[in-house]
Amino acid sequence: MASTYKPEQARVPPAVQLPVPPVTKFKIALCQLSATDDKERNIVHARRAIEEAAEKGAQLVLLPEIWNSPYSNDCLPVYAEDIDAGGDASPSTAMLSEAARSLQITIVGGSIPERSGDRLYNTCCVFGKDGKLKAKHRKIHLFDIDIPGKITFVESKTLSAGDNHTIVDTDVGRIGIGICHDIQFQELAMVYAARGAHLLCYPGAFEMTTGPLYWELVQRSRAADNQLYVATCSPARDAGAGYIAWGHSTLVGPFGEVLATTEHEETIIIAEIDYSQIELRRTNLPLQNQRRGDLYQLVDLQRLNS
Amino acid sequence: MASTYKPEQARVPPAVQLPVPPVTKFKIALCQLSATDDKERNIVHARRAIEEAAEKGAQLVLLPEIWNSPYSNDCLPVYAEDIDAGGDASPSTAMLSEAARSLQITIVGGSIPERSGDRLYNTCCVFGKDGKLKAKHRKIHLFDIDIPGKITFVESKTLSAGDNHTIVDTDVGRIGIGICHDIQFQELAMVYAARGAHLLCYPGAFEMTTGPLYWELVQRSRAADNQLYVATCSPARDAGAGYIAWGHSTLVGPFGEVLATTEHEETIIIAEIDYSQIELRRTNLPLQNQRRGDLYQLVDLQRLNS
Repeated sequence: MASTYKPEQARVPPAVQLPVPPVTKFKIALCQLSATDDKERNIVHARRAIEEAAEKGAQLVLLPEIWNSPYSNDCLPVYAEDIDAGGDASPSTAMLSEAARSLQITIVGGSIPERSGDRLYNTCCVFGKDGKLKAKHRKIHLFDIDIPGKITFVESKTLSAGDNHTIVDTDVGRIGIGICHDIQFQELAMVYAARGAHLLCYPGAFEMTTGPLYWELVQRSRAADNQLYVATCSPARDAGAGYIAWGHSTLVGPFGEVLATTEHEETIIIAEIDYSQIELRRTNLPLQNQRRGDLYQLVDLQRLNS
Repeated sequence: MASTYKPEQARVPPAVQLPVPPVTKFKIALCQLSATDDKERNIVHARRAIEEAAEKGAQLVLLPEIWNSPYSNDCLPVYAEDIDAGGDASPSTAMLSEAARSLQITIVGGSIPERSGDRLYNTCCVFGKDGKLKAKHRKIHLFDIDIPGKITFVESKTLSAGDNHTIVDTDVGRIGIGICHDIQFQELAMVYAARGAHLLCYPGAFEMTTGPLYWELVQRSRAADNQLYVATCSPARDAGAGYIAWGHSTLVGPFGEVLATTEHEETIIIAEIDYSQIELRRTNLPLQNQRRGDLYQLVDLQRLNS
């Protein structure tokens, strides 16, 4: 394509070069865990799963959305923790930090309900292998849906939305974070790709209506459209819960190919990521050089104004 | 979601209200036709298929990409027509105009190679039931791919790219047009949705590598992400051709659901479109009110500067 088509202007600011990742091949674990109404049990249970994943060679462990609590507007305030205060005020993230440090792995810690002042958020914490909190993503698109007779859920009744994109350099590459409904917004994945993400991680509890309709679809399309890896992690299904999760945690490669997936039961998926596939796919089909920056632009307001 | 999230600013200029379509329910025909090296035969053959579709009640007929010629860089210049000159200089579009008028239908005429001055384009013409040319889309993203041992094709060797988005009000609703590789660019579908499209039509000849990988994926994701209808039409497969088409012409609804599809052989798909589903889906899951215009914006430069 001639340069008059201005592909570099299709992202504002222009897309950054894909960074060289600190590791090319590594194992990721998707821990599709059950969550009960016993928070202490949930924490011990998650700790055990993380350890098992590390023993199987995972250098990156991804947990589900809201893994320390049942997923309901009634429970979220009760199970919420003050992550910034830390220590006893946030036993769930204290465990994640300890596990990351002792097992020497990176953890994308699913999400937990976070209390901050008089607000509640749905929040994902990322811990490095030194046990330090590297990033905190507050879900930016809340899940309000109303399909009469099938699913009605108004997350914004209880939660506030975060105000930031979250992308973080880790020992296993540059990772963009979204939580569940965030994945339905293609703009977020486009922003992360333009910032040089190798991998997008979406803890997410799709439910029994939207799950079969397009849980796999959105994962595969975010990966294929942006030519990067996408990993998702759902809670295991509890048919007796108020909000029934679809399950089907999945790893997708940069051509939109499903590399590993599962049904709805509790399990730990271990799968290999090979970042050399990203370069290969972008050489095969150089979408980044074919965009029409003379016709459309995606603006990342946060990066533009920083 | 609170209005501080500025969903209306997620599109620049702001998205227009979905227009009331002139018809709510109607039949669309996807004519998955074979193309030979005999242009005259191809025109007669397409005319017959359009007539059959109209007899079966189709009010909108969609043809494949490059239906009047084999799809190769050698053939495109030879089979190209001067659409603007019309008449004898463009027998393919003269047929489409005549068919639309006599059958009283709207035709999204797939695409043909167009000669304009010393340039060649891959061009889709839309005819109204008065036989008049309502819109002309020149493919804006040319297909350059190189997967060694599988598929290498450099469309930009021969063709120039168009410089315009193309969306048109017809007797069967507001239709955004893309040709084949245009569908891989989510930005185009987002621009059309923001301009009030009910339906996106993509004549497209995916091939035997990218077809199974993501022909269905991109159609379903454009429909689901933008909550509108997507129709595609491929040539039938000719296993002896230089460029072998994947087939699988498809109609997808606004939740990303496949409503009608086929394999690779010559056929005419007749399927019903019901635009009331668009409003319903956008009420169920109001993505348009949940976008974060404070974080990202998609700019339609053509509409902004017009």
